[in-house]
Amino acid sequence: MLEELRAALGPVGCLTGDDIPEAARSDASRTGQALPLALLRPASVREVSAALAICHHHRLSVVPQGGMTGLAGGANPDPASVALSLERLSGIEEIDAEGMAMVVRAGTVLEHAQLAAQEAGFLLPVDLGARGSCQIGGNIATNAGGLRVIRDGMTRDNLLGIEVVLADGTVLGQLSKVVKNNTGYDLRHLFAGSEGTLGIITRAVIRLRPLPAPPRTALAALPDFAAVLKFLQMAREALPGLSAFEAMWRDYFAFSQNLLPYTLFDTPPPFAIILEAPDDPAFDMLLERAFDEGLVTDALIARSLADARRFWTLREGVAMDAALPGLINLDISLATRRLDEFACRCRADLLARFPGAHVSFFGHIADSNLHVAVCLPGDDNTAQIHDVDAIVYGLVREFGGSISAEHGVGTLKRDWLGHSRSEAEIAAMRAIKAALDPRGIMNPGKLLPI
Amino acid sequence: MLEELRAALGPVGCLTGDDIPEAARSDASRTGQALPLALLRPASVREVSAALAICHHHRLSVVPQGGMTGLAGGANPDPASVALSLERLSGIEEIDAEGMAMVVRAGTVLEHAQLAAQEAGFLLPVDLGARGSCQIGGNIATNAGGLRVIRDGMTRDNLLGIEVVLADGTVLGQLSKVVKNNTGYDLRHLFAGSEGTLGIITRAVIRLRPLPAPPRTALAALPDFAAVLKFLQMAREALPGLSAFEAMWRDYFAFSQNLLPYTLFDTPPPFAIILEAPDDPAFDMLLERAFDEGLVTDALIARSLADARRFWTLREGVAMDAALPGLINLDISLATRRLDEFACRCRADLLARFPGAHVSFFGHIADSNLHVAVCLPGDDNTAQIHDVDAIVYGLVREFGGSISAEHGVGTLKRDWLGHSRSEAEIAAMRAIKAALDPRGIMNPGKLLPI
Repeated sequence: MLEELRAALGPVGCLTGDDIPEAARSDASRTGQALPLALLRPASVREVSAALAICHHHRLSVVPQGGMTGLAGGANPDPASVALSLERLSGIEEIDAEGMAMVVRAGTVLEHAQLAAQEAGFLLPVDLGARGSCQIGGNIATNAGGLRVIRDGMTRDNLLGIEVVLADGTVLGQLSKVVKNNTGYDLRHLFAGSEGTLGIITRAVIRLRPLPAPPRTALAALPDFAAVLKFLQMAREALPGLSAFEAMWRDYFAFSQNLLPYTLFDTPPPFAIILEAPDDPAFDMLLERAFDEGLVTDALIARSLADARRFWTLREGVAMDAALPGLINLDISLATRRLDEFACRCRADLLARFPGAHVSFFGHIADSNLHVAVCLPGDDNTAQIHDVDAIVYGLVREFGGSISAEHGVGTLKRDWLGHSRSEAEIAAMRAIKAALDPRGIMNPGKLLPI
Repeated sequence: MLEELRAALGPVGCLTGDDIPEAARSDASRTGQALPLALLRPASVREVSAALAICHHHRLSVVPQGGMTGLAGGANPDPASVALSLERLSGIEEIDAEGMAMVVRAGTVLEHAQLAAQEAGFLLPVDLGARGSCQIGGNIATNAGGLRVIRDGMTRDNLLGIEVVLADGTVLGQLSKVVKNNTGYDLRHLFAGSEGTLGIITRAVIRLRPLPAPPRTALAALPDFAAVLKFLQMAREALPGLSAFEAMWRDYFAFSQNLLPYTLFDTPPPFAIILEAPDDPAFDMLLERAFDEGLVTDALIARSLADARRFWTLREGVAMDAALPGLINLDISLATRRLDEFACRCRADLLARFPGAHVSFFGHIADSNLHVAVCLPGDDNTAQIHDVDAIVYGLVREFGGSISAEHGVGTLKRDWLGHSRSEAEIAAMRAIKAALDPRGIMNPGKLLPI
């Protein structure tokens, strides 16, 4: 098998043993470190197709890999499979200015695509923290969310067309650049978010948008969650171009601010909101009105990009990983109005089980998306992570939410899928998987419960 | 079989023979008039499930029907099948103000849902001409487009969750109200646009948006298509809330205006654009700048809702159906920058084959969506419609476009599907259909080539 693959892809396209770089052995969840049988590095759609046809023939499992920034174990290799990296299938093929679309290869690093769009005078409306290393193909395969979903939607919402190679090597091309296309089943949306279990995305057409003007950014302090909800409603009505409404619960704000060399609010407020919208008089009027109504008790307005950066650095909690080794970032979704009720229950339940743990909350709350940061006391707590999951996802089920808002399922949430999807839905997913990948070689053991 | 169905649904839920109303015998394409074996009218999800289980057991085909406003024959019954109407499964179950979502039953008339949203202070962001009779379930099953796609997207883009009954009666529930949900395959997008061939949509969660302020509307005259493209680019940049950019080619404008009791432009311009955006000084500034640059040669700005209505009446061409019996409205999509090149070729080819025919063009051009209005000379031209299709869809294939931007495939475009989707894609669709509807009872003969 490996000889066939080496013949098809050349020596640089098929690495084995020590030649396989560390980066290909585990994704950013740092779980499931393993050496695959080989790391395939096709440089063209034709080579992806040839590689899959060989794997299909030999019933050899394939684990697709992008920038390895995933947090759910979805790209972790295993010793009985080959990994297939898209890194050599990269580059921008076309920017269509009138059609406002970019044709891009799957292995292109998101930030490269963003910069190319910007040079052509457009916004590429997908953005997330890992932009410097994640790849477009992985963004699509996991339907990545990110920081501007409130304005721009998820990755799938900015996808005009994709080209996919199926398990048997068939190339399924729909590099459509048209916005409207009602000709049968929407395969684009089926592959988006399928985490490499149905085929390998090789190229995509991403919708571009006009470059927005530099926004206005504020950090507001709010006294309680009712005020947060009311403020969100007012912001939605007053600021049609609202591009961020990011909430930090007091526990998160206090911890993150303590790690920074600057202080934004001397007393961490019950809730802090980063508000971002087009620079318009309505922005300051909204803050004034919210202040008058007692919804906002204090607010800082960024006077420079550096000011805004300071707000975002606090929110992104970049220093937390170092301060809390073993930090787990759970990513869930439920009705916006119940987020604080959930957070209170979740905090109490986690602390009852793990006294002394770090537990804090933040999230893209306008998108009903909450992140739970958990760090257990003690050194090696891998065994207890299951208990954390059981507590958090058990509550998610009770609240009728989703166990994964934007991180996907991978291996880490696989066994909890039934908390968010019904048996009938999982059965339908299995039927679709079997229809498109009858030999089950595409990223087995990921997403669907075994 | 019919007795079992009658027992499950009651006499009012299972009509036969003359009791089946005219409306259930043909959709708005007025093709394929037929009397089904029975018209099923379930009043609950449970009844839909019971009815499908019976049909599945007896391998009896089922044709789902909404408001029968489709233009592609997708809801046309046939004498060997039962039709299943959702009309009794109607009503709004919930409006979640904080979550900005509406839970609605499939048989609800779109306009009723729009009004309910409006009363609660929200916009239901799906709108089309047939709003007074089309139903939400049908809007989703056909992924309806409409007049505000440029701002609000297609129906699928406003869908948070759906509940579907599969061919065997299994209820697949995902009435999710969360914006972000990355837990496996997106079945919601698979059923949206599947035209009843995979299952029956029974309920849905539609995303609501803040009510927009009354917009400003203008009708602009432009000298050529290059000016249209440039004006579109300027409008996108200057008017972030742009909600309509509707183009009429001279042939369409002249014909439609002649049927109206008022005159908007004495001399029909090469291109007329209806521009709609939030009422903001940027709107008039854009028009002035476009005028100064020679892109716009004349413009009318609506001073009242009645003025705006006059522009839209011209664009909707409501009097054309009566003036041109047998009018065909073809709905296609291709790269925006090539729309006029397509229109010129298409007009020439149609008139060469059918001298004296009416041929005119209009469309949602910012969405790359063109409509071709064709009326052949003579009385009964059904036989020649195939030739019209061959000319228009042949050109669409040459231009790499889509044979259906928003109307769907149904029966009328079924045999042309290969002009827009590859053999591999059609094979993948068939595999998915077989996986979810193994007995092939769901709307057979629609969408997929026989």
